[in-house]
Amino acid sequence: MSNLLEQINSPDDLKQLSVAQLKALAEEIRQFILSSVSKTGGHLASNLGVVELTLALHYAFDFKKDKLLWDVGHQCYAHKIITGRREQFRRLRRADGISGFPNPEESVYDVFAVGHAGTSIATAIGMAIGQGRQNKKDKIVALVGDASIVNGSSFEALNNLGLVKSQLLIVLNDNSMAIDATQGAVAKYFSKVRLSQTYEDLRRTTGNILEHMPVIGKTVEEAIEKIKKSIRMALPASQLFESLNIPYFGPVDGHDIESLIQLFDGLAHLNHPAVLHVYTKKGKGFSPAGDDPRRFHSTGPFKINGPDVHRDWAGLPAGKRSFTRVFGEHLLQLAQKDSRIVAITSAMCDGTGLGQFRSKFADRFYDVGIAESAAVDIAAGMAKSGLKPVVCIYSTFLQRSFDQIFQEVCLQNLPIVFCIDRAGVVGSDGPTHHGLMDIGFLRMMPNIVLTAPSNGTELGLALEFALSENGPVVIRYPKDFVPVEGAEVASCSARFERGKSVVVRRGTPMNPDDIGISIVNYGCMLNEALSAAEQLSGEGIEVDVVNARFAVPLDPAIPMYIGTGQHRKASLPGGKGIITVEDHYLSCGFGSAVLESASAVFPGGIAKPIKVLAMPGGLIKHDTRSSQLNEMGINAERIVQSVKEMLGPAK
Amino acid sequence: MSNLLEQINSPDDLKQLSVAQLKALAEEIRQFILSSVSKTGGHLASNLGVVELTLALHYAFDFKKDKLLWDVGHQCYAHKIITGRREQFRRLRRADGISGFPNPEESVYDVFAVGHAGTSIATAIGMAIGQGRQNKKDKIVALVGDASIVNGSSFEALNNLGLVKSQLLIVLNDNSMAIDATQGAVAKYFSKVRLSQTYEDLRRTTGNILEHMPVIGKTVEEAIEKIKKSIRMALPASQLFESLNIPYFGPVDGHDIESLIQLFDGLAHLNHPAVLHVYTKKGKGFSPAGDDPRRFHSTGPFKINGPDVHRDWAGLPAGKRSFTRVFGEHLLQLAQKDSRIVAITSAMCDGTGLGQFRSKFADRFYDVGIAESAAVDIAAGMAKSGLKPVVCIYSTFLQRSFDQIFQEVCLQNLPIVFCIDRAGVVGSDGPTHHGLMDIGFLRMMPNIVLTAPSNGTELGLALEFALSENGPVVIRYPKDFVPVEGAEVASCSARFERGKSVVVRRGTPMNPDDIGISIVNYGCMLNEALSAAEQLSGEGIEVDVVNARFAVPLDPAIPMYIGTGQHRKASLPGGKGIITVEDHYLSCGFGSAVLESASAVFPGGIAKPIKVLAMPGGLIKHDTRSSQLNEMGINAERIVQSVKEMLGPAK
Repeated sequence: MSNLLEQINSPDDLKQLSVAQLKALAEEIRQFILSSVSKTGGHLASNLGVVELTLALHYAFDFKKDKLLWDVGHQCYAHKIITGRREQFRRLRRADGISGFPNPEESVYDVFAVGHAGTSIATAIGMAIGQGRQNKKDKIVALVGDASIVNGSSFEALNNLGLVKSQLLIVLNDNSMAIDATQGAVAKYFSKVRLSQTYEDLRRTTGNILEHMPVIGKTVEEAIEKIKKSIRMALPASQLFESLNIPYFGPVDGHDIESLIQLFDGLAHLNHPAVLHVYTKKGKGFSPAGDDPRRFHSTGPFKINGPDVHRDWAGLPAGKRSFTRVFGEHLLQLAQKDSRIVAITSAMCDGTGLGQFRSKFADRFYDVGIAESAAVDIAAGMAKSGLKPVVCIYSTFLQRSFDQIFQEVCLQNLPIVFCIDRAGVVGSDGPTHHGLMDIGFLRMMPNIVLTAPSNGTELGLALEFALSENGPVVIRYPKDFVPVEGAEVASCSARFERGKSVVVRRGTPMNPDDIGISIVNYGCMLNEALSAAEQLSGEGIEVDVVNARFAVPLDPAIPMYIGTGQHRKASLPGGKGIITVEDHYLSCGFGSAVLESASAVFPGGIAKPIKVLAMPGGLIKHDTRSSQLNEMGINAERIVQSVKEMLGPAK
Repeated sequence: MSNLLEQINSPDDLKQLSVAQLKALAEEIRQFILSSVSKTGGHLASNLGVVELTLALHYAFDFKKDKLLWDVGHQCYAHKIITGRREQFRRLRRADGISGFPNPEESVYDVFAVGHAGTSIATAIGMAIGQGRQNKKDKIVALVGDASIVNGSSFEALNNLGLVKSQLLIVLNDNSMAIDATQGAVAKYFSKVRLSQTYEDLRRTTGNILEHMPVIGKTVEEAIEKIKKSIRMALPASQLFESLNIPYFGPVDGHDIESLIQLFDGLAHLNHPAVLHVYTKKGKGFSPAGDDPRRFHSTGPFKINGPDVHRDWAGLPAGKRSFTRVFGEHLLQLAQKDSRIVAITSAMCDGTGLGQFRSKFADRFYDVGIAESAAVDIAAGMAKSGLKPVVCIYSTFLQRSFDQIFQEVCLQNLPIVFCIDRAGVVGSDGPTHHGLMDIGFLRMMPNIVLTAPSNGTELGLALEFALSENGPVVIRYPKDFVPVEGAEVASCSARFERGKSVVVRRGTPMNPDDIGISIVNYGCMLNEALSAAEQLSGEGIEVDVVNARFAVPLDPAIPMYIGTGQHRKASLPGGKGIITVEDHYLSCGFGSAVLESASAVFPGGIAKPIKVLAMPGGLIKHDTRSSQLNEMGINAERIVQSVKEMLGPAK
């Protein structure tokens, strides 16, 4: 095999190649991605599928000035490889390396830092309008997958495409596969179109489009009319787009570089938005990924051709169990006892640990595709009619459901359980995927209960509690392993009571009038708090460790820890101050709730210190989760340090 | 005219009437709505349009057990009138009366308390699934307007309609009009369908549907095939729904009660979801509303046949100017100087004060319809390409854009100005429409600046400041009049500086070591704070009044007000404590930000009291805005009381 890839350090180099060389290059890139991701982990199947498409786009356009907008963006590896970032793939998604998503800080070829679905068409519309108003002629291309185009944001954008009176090309990359199989009517429609066509049909369609390309002297309408006349298809693929008055071309073969380049060359000259529908094969060139793209959507490192080709997050080897997996097991157990329990997710079945539930209770499992807003509303309807819906969405994607949780769930006080996976920092996916705002955006809502288990046992207890409530309950947990449960956390095996915290460790008072400090943990950092307490005890400093369990309602005992003499609750050891610990932004988080509560309880002033350990603000880039927690200053060491600072210089 | 209406106290009474009587009743109801709304104010045009549709639905279904789901819901007046709430229309949207939106607390005939668009189809799907799983056979009807169906949530739901394997009727109420004229491709498509048809076509369509109604023995597919064959139409109205595999019937005349009843009787027996497309005329029966439904979307009291038939919010008589109107004027002025300024709204042009801007700068005004998510993404694209977008969305509806503001705007640090109207309590629209969470959900986001002007002058200054920034800036203001600007607020005429507060009034120190209290205002309650200070001064108590202007970044001087001696800033009078005032939930609000900041600045404990005056939680029902503020405890009287409590008993 020739080594073309080493010569490609920018898209300009690409343009020196012949089409035959481009084809060879595509194979090299695929091998490079496969080999690289097998070592670092990352998104695989989708990236293998879009190599030719990416090359053709960069060959036909000049994205130094033209704009290429990715949707979700996890399929940008080939794009990164040919835009000067090949060498950095050794450090993909690592602190000292490149992100797994587009990032303008890395390259002028990346326009938006993205990671959520359904944004490319609307942002492209905005850019096209901006170009138009400033008489710029740079081309704009939005590349959107069949899983993203069903998102409400995409549809709202398609409905507004008429705002654009200039060139804007939407490339619909149809690989008939989201992270999970794409759901819904549009997916069925695409799949019908796909099944109705042979490879010969695709070739003919391409030929026809090229022949009738609406270039100079022809209007788009005339061209499309001619193309349609000359193509006989079982089902008109254009029907959906036509009803939205969007010029549609396709479907065409997304691995045929030569034709793609010609198509892009032609479509670049339209003075009108248009859709080009392209078929690609997810996992192309690597049969395990092609056969099971869901498992190879996002993968850890693996051995190519090894027997255990893949470990997925929910299915790690014995000894290490993720919160995700533990959740799935608890839900399965509870669902066996109560047939009203149903599970809803938005294209995140495996990611949220629902795989087993889906197998066991296929008729009680609902995947609505990338449609977080509708997922919550459908759950609201279910709850209204007497079911017990469990909604499983990552923290970052639940941001899409803010208004639905407010109006359709909380205003109605409906019993829905929200199981928020990926709460807190998420490691290698980086800023677009952290779940650092859920405590804040949810704790304002009426009727809601917020809880966060500290370990696997508590996750089960929280779920049991949540399903017994008559209103909305949120359970948040991180993308992490459940901690080992030592003897000290036995107190956490008591069942959850609404708004009740648990004292996990009691420090021996150092001074009867002014005794110690309480570390109040919310969520998964309990072992760090305990480890800090242990370490401090070794140095003769005794602290209490409290597991808050609830952010709403907040245990009224918690602010009491910082009370002055007359406010101190007899049954609690009281304390000099509180250090709160959480995996969330400081703004609006758990510690903030403690402050609010303390200021209400002590109108004379919060005379004792409250230190909030949380993410102070700003962005945390891709890295390991533990490094990110250290960077946020949330770990045992920092707790120890905070306790010492609070105690002041030793006397 | 016979007086049928007085005999109708429930839908059961309705069923005793003949079709001829129903027609007469429809006229009576229309007159009743017109007369009632002319006295109380309320939503008018849409309610006049759906009278026959509402009567036919209640005649054909039994909504004591069947479920009628309204979308948005402001068009539910006829429904309320015939479900036992006629007498309460005298107190429509008043504290002691009924809500202007569906509300399950009022009646078993109301299923969800709603007020936002695009929720009915998804919640109906959930209810239908719930029915199915519990072997209930109650019918489910979602009534959605042509303006709501283009919302992303509606589309996500339509895409998932296949989850339902039982009856679910979607009535598409097409009056070709949102609050503003409906925008976008779907609207154009509906309008093409509409224009292609005569009244005779509608009659024929109705006949054909009834003839081929897919009842026992016929499948939906067969029926639709037959219906389609026997109707020749210029444009197939079913195209959009067909591509989504949704059985579609229509369009039919939404004022023909007799046919509607027959259609509903038939469609109620489908064991499959279906859409019935119905044409209605907004403002029917009252020509001023029919001719100008936008002005009569939501109206104050007016004189029927009087010369000044209407006063709208943005156009109140001289002397009283709303924040909305003042915003519109300032924007107009600034836009004249900078051609990069563009305005974007989501079906709220007049409501957000953009009417004049639209007239003056038609090519710089973008209304995307009820599509708040896309509005923000389009703005992000515009900002990326060098424009200065001003996004005008009510606080409550901006909740739909949470994730877009986070990822597409704040992560990219794009210069977009968000002008959030209806921030705080909104008066007669009630719980679905209050804007009590925006400070909280926005202040967590990276790179954002949050500001709130206290009066009309500051609104202009805030806008000028926002447009000069290089990142996202939010300006919040209420649905209220701008306050009269007395001499004391002259200090507020200085230009806005990032994160800089203004001392509006300085109290004379009472004691050099421990002097006074600072009232820190964020937003529109400054005059209340000043009035409290004045009143206290009369009693010999001197307080400072500070206008915070910014919630993010918070002026570092603000927590200093509560500092101990060594922290006290020399140039500021210091103080015993702080009372914060805001029109927001206490959770995550401005006062909460002050607490967070104070706890970080004073690691030894916030030794001085901070009292947060804000909405403590829960719901605030429809009422006047001033009553709601009083109920929340946000007014001069309460500030006075808080100061006295903080000072403790007089010595």
